Parts: sequence; C-alpha cells; structure tokens
Amino acid sequence: MGRVFNFSAGPAALPVSVLERARDEMVDYQNSGMSVMEMSHRSKEYMAIIAKAEALVRKLMGIPKNYHVLFQQGGATMQFTTVPMNLISDPSTQSADYINTGSWSKKAIKEAKKQFANVRVAATSEEVNFSRIPTQDELKLNPESTYVHMTTNNTIFGTEFHYTPDTGSVPLVADMSSNILSRKLDVSRFGIIYAGAQKNLGPSGVTLVVVRDDLVGRNDGLPLMADYKAQAEKESMLNTPPTYAIYILGLVLEWMESKGGVEAMEKINIRKAAKLYSAIDASGFYGCPTQVESRSRMNIPFTLKDDGLNAAFLEQAKGAGLVTLKGHRSVGGMRASIYNAMPEEGVDALISFMQDFERKNG
Amino acid sequence: MGRVFNFSAGPAALPVSVLERARDEMVDYQNSGMSVMEMSHRSKEYMAIIAKAEALVRKLMGIPKNYHVLFQQGGATMQFTTVPMNLISDPSTQSADYINTGSWSKKAIKEAKKQFANVRVAATSEEVNFSRIPTQDELKLNPESTYVHMTTNNTIFGTEFHYTPDTGSVPLVADMSSNILSRKLDVSRFGIIYAGAQKNLGPSGVTLVVVRDDLVGRNDGLPLMADYKAQAEKESMLNTPPTYAIYILGLVLEWMESKGGVEAMEKINIRKAAKLYSAIDASGFYGCPTQVESRSRMNIPFTLKDDGLNAAFLEQAKGAGLVTLKGHRSVGGMRASIYNAMPEEGVDALISFMQDFERKNG
Repeated sequence: MGRVFNFSAGPAALPVSVLERARDEMVDYQNSGMSVMEMSHRSKEYMAIIAKAEALVRKLMGIPKNYHVLFQQGGATMQFTTVPMNLISDPSTQSADYINTGSWSKKAIKEAKKQFANVRVAATSEEVNFSRIPTQDELKLNPESTYVHMTTNNTIFGTEFHYTPDTGSVPLVADMSSNILSRKLDVSRFGIIYAGAQKNLGPSGVTLVVVRDDLVGRNDGLPLMADYKAQAEKESMLNTPPTYAIYILGLVLEWMESKGGVEAMEKINIRKAAKLYSAIDASGFYGCPTQVESRSRMNIPFTLKDDGLNAAFLEQAKGAGLVTLKGHRSVGGMRASIYNAMPEEGVDALISFMQDFERKNG
Repeated sequence: MGRVFNFSAGPAALPVSVLERARDEMVDYQNSGMSVMEMSHRSKEYMAIIAKAEALVRKLMGIPKNYHVLFQQGGATMQFTTVPMNLISDPSTQSADYINTGSWSKKAIKEAKKQFANVRVAATSEEVNFSRIPTQDELKLNPESTYVHMTTNNTIFGTEFHYTPDTGSVPLVADMSSNILSRKLDVSRFGIIYAGAQKNLGPSGVTLVVVRDDLVGRNDGLPLMADYKAQAEKESMLNTPPTYAIYILGLVLEWMESKGGVEAMEKINIRKAAKLYSAIDASGFYGCPTQVESRSRMNIPFTLKDDGLNAAFLEQAKGAGLVTLKGHRSVGGMRASIYNAMPEEGVDALISFMQDFERKNG
C-alpha cells in the first residue's frame, strides 16, 4: 500500500517531507561521505546539527536565556526519577505536590516515592476515570512544596490542561511529552519541562529537557546520567548522545518552522480536534468519554455504540488506510492521536470513514 | 565526495548495505505504509523487528538461556550506575573489584563510588599511560567481592584484553562497548555484559545489556530505568524503547550473520589489525604507543615521527577519503578505529596513504 494515515499515540506519524529528506541524506549527508549515524558526535558536521536543533527548540518554544536545553535519554520515565534526584536534597523533610491526571501522572508519583517520602497528591480525577482535568480551585497546593508536578496532556485518557496552574513561587515541573509544541506556552511559568520526543518532536530515544538555571546543581554526587548540572555543563555531550534521533528532531522542527511555527500549529490543531469532536458529538453512534472542557487536542478517544463492532471498524479503517486506531485498554474503544504531523486531510479522511461506517452499521 | 572510509571511534562506520536498506525502507517499511520511526512499539510489525534483533544477538553471541537480553538507554555511562544499583544491596559492607585499564574504567569507578564506598582497584596500568593490559597474575582480586568489573577494549588507549579474567565464583561484569561481537566469546564466563551500540552494533542511543538471571532482582525499589528485573519482565518495553536504533542494530546483525557471523568477523579483524600494526612497526616514521601483547584489534593509535606533520597528515588523508583519524588528546597522534564495519579495503587504503605520506615526508 502507499503511505497510510497513522493515528498512533507514539511513536507517531512524522511529516513525510522529513522522512524523505532523511532517506535522501541517509547514505551521504550533505556531501560528507557518511551517514549522520556514522558521525562522531564531536565532529564539526554533527556539532552543527545538534546546535541547530537546540536553536530551533529555543526559538519555537520561546525559551528564556536562563533555561538550559538538554537532549537526554530514557524517556519521561527517566525524568520521573531525575526530577526528584535533582530537586530534593533532604528526602526526609522535603515534599512535592503531584497533580494526578492519569496513567503517566501515577507512574511519576510511583517513581518519586522511591526517592522521597512526602509525595503529596494535590488533586486527582481518578474518581471519574480521569475524564477531566482538575481546575485551579481544586488544586490543594502546599506552599512549602519543593515543586509541583503535572502532566500537561494525558495520552491514554484524552485530556489536556487548557490552563497553566498558578503555583506561586513553587517551581512547576511539567511532563509535556504528548503536547509539547502543539500550542503556545509561556515557558517562564515553568521550572522544568520535559518531553519524550516520540509524539510531537521526532523518533523515540531522545528526551527534551528544559530546566531553569536555579534548579540545576542543587545536589552533588548524582549519577551522571541523572545530573542536570553535569549534562548542562557538557551541553548534552557528557557521553555519546542519541545522535540520529536528535538529527530527526531537528528536521521535524525545521518543518514546523517552515509551516509557521507553534502559532500555526496551534491553529491547525484546534481545527483538527474541533472537527473530530464535532463529528463524534453530532453522531448518535460514536461517543467520547472525556468532559468537554478538558478534552485533548492531541489524543481523542471515542467509543462505538456497540463494542461488538470494534473489530470491524478497525479492519475496515485499515483497508481505508487509517491505522493504529485501537484505544488503550484503560479506556476501550478507539483513539485517534492527531499530533502536529497528522495532516488535516488525515482527520478529514477519518471523519468520512466514520460517517460511512455509521451509515452502514448505525 | 563519494562515501569515505571513516575511522571514527564512535559513532562509527556502518555497513553501506545497511544504510542503503534503511534508506529504501525509510518512508514505507515493507509495505506497512509508514516508517519504522513512526510505528507504535507495540505494533505487530515492530514487535517482529525487536524480536528478530534479540534473536540475532542471542545467536551471534551464543548466549545461554539463563541470560536476559535487554535493549536499554543511556549508554555505558548509565550502566556504570545501573550495575552497582542492581548488585550492591548493602553499600556499607559490600565491595567490588575494578580493573582500571583506561578512561572508561576510571569513569566506571567514579560512578560506582557514588553508589558505595568499597570500590577496590584490583589492577591498573595507569603508571604506563594505560599502554598495556594487566595479566591474570597481576589482578589482586578479593574473593569476597560482589563482582569484578572490566573494560574489555579501551577505545582511547588502543588496548584490549586477549584473555577473560578468571574471577572464580565472583561474577564478572564487562563493558564491551568497543569490541563486542568482534571476536569469539564464552558468554557463560560473564555475569553481565553491556555495550553502547555506536561502535560495533549500530547507531548511538541503544545499549545492549546481557545479564545472567541470578543477578536480576536482588534489590527492590530501584528507579525503573535502572531496574534489570523490571526491564527484563517487560522485555525492554517498560517504556518506549529507542525503536529506530534497535531496528538499525538488527540490520547490522543481519549483515554480520550474512558475512559468516562472529568467527568470520574475528578472522577479518585479526587480518586488518595485523596489517596496520605491521605497516606501523615496519616503518621508522610511524610509532605505536601500545605494548604488543595488549594491542587492540579495534582502535589503533599511532604517532608520526614529527608531531608538526600531524595537521598535514590529517588534511591529506581527508583528501584521499580517509577521515576521522585524529587521535584522542590523552594519547596524541592518530587513531584508526577499524570495527567490524570497516572494510579491509579501508585499511589497505590507509596503509597505502601512510606509506605514500612517509615517502614524501620521511
């Protein structure tokens, strides 16, 4: 078959122009006589690639100068440990507030508890199966906390923060793996932002970390791979970084810039999500488990009137070139992940297919 | 220019047939309609890719059934921490022996000391600038050690263990980043083997860990990304693995198998290294800082009679399509890294160039 529309939650669709360029440069990158994969990370050619990637991250996100930009390994899960390792100096007295909005928040909490005792849950929506995001008023924040942790978008449950919590002077730490660079953001409201790349940034295997400089270097003797200070001092070159993944991330950001940057992405993302939610809500056949005001623009779970039709839906969708639509087992039904790289035509094709399927099975 | 012979110490040259296949499959992997980079790590297609990579690792290395094969992130540096985290249960009483054969051994020691106090150096060749490997007789091993750690090949200093230390019943842990799969090996002599991929296995961003099952699960409450037990239970899918890097690693191993596996690689590697060392030794113009019996087959440092000629050598070599030959600052001069993927013609071309350069400048 030709290229499909891939609604995977991550790793996820990449812009085809990025893949074509990676293909064309694979065996001989810009007349260097070698692949990017083969380059010493300290070569002039590669140093230019990583510097450009960092510059694009800074430009597209509007990152203030007092933040470090790091390319790390281990995904968000590694950051679940790295954040407390760097911020908690006295595990017996310090505490942190976690906002629990789904599976990834829960994992972050579980990992934090291995590092220190006083992991407080400042709010949770578990009682409604994470179908909504707590409001600012619902956050029971402790002003003595060392930091507040949040998950800005919940891949599995299909919810998203549409506001940035006010945490006063307490640093806000955000796992933005699944909605980074999909919407405008005031980085200065955050102490640490991290994101596994495999949704909106590029391939899996690289994690973007943006960390304010006063949060770096609080603790000594950390393992090198979890030490923001050591990583910042060596500009992510403390050991061999995931060079090829960073190269692709750079290409994705170049593509994003050429499309008009985050503002343009946000406009399209709002339109794509609105279309799909409208089609679901207008139908008596499809349903969406999430509460309207908390709905994610990135991950859209939906159910069929009759679960017995799920298998036929998935099979026929695949036949129409619409793949990886099966929902997560915690929610059931379907899930369409429509990150930046999902073209609007992909959403249109999905909606057409859904309407057609409803006509035949409704 | 066309493809060059790239003598980089890592990331390093890959077989051109692997790169060509990656290029051809980049936009549409085997009629799936998507790139491997875009695949859900839990998709059927991707599960087949990672299963094949593991099967090839097991086959080519001859790994006994009581060993886990893990694909991890963070490079050897992450393992410097992960090994003691998994093996040392009581940091105040347990000890381990480290054999110090160069920069990477020293880093391993430094990271281990952050985890527990009794890090013993069982042997070192630092007094001769790591130009040789200690013999079995020189190892002052403590039979009460929890483990013995070694670096099997020293990328910077150009030395290699040509024997496997006898550690009795104490588990032997080996950093094999720079010579894994370059020579036959009895895996059952080791407790843990780990290797960053970017020298003999594939691109940077994935670390191969082979761990005997009795060394897994000794400690509870470890951070997930450093917990061999959790990683083994989830078959390296505890979170999103570096999917594309593992795919390329699989292609490299397929290539290796098609060439006759490790035995064939070892024969060629012996021949390539012997040629280059002979050319150096036969010349009055080039010198090699390493002692003959400890010389690495993978990384060959050499000096010119006159350091003032280094810049001209590098520039003219580059003109002849021979690149990344500059030596590490700890040793000086030149370094030719000739891993499995460096074809014999590359070594021949280097030797011709060196002889020509000597005629003109000797």
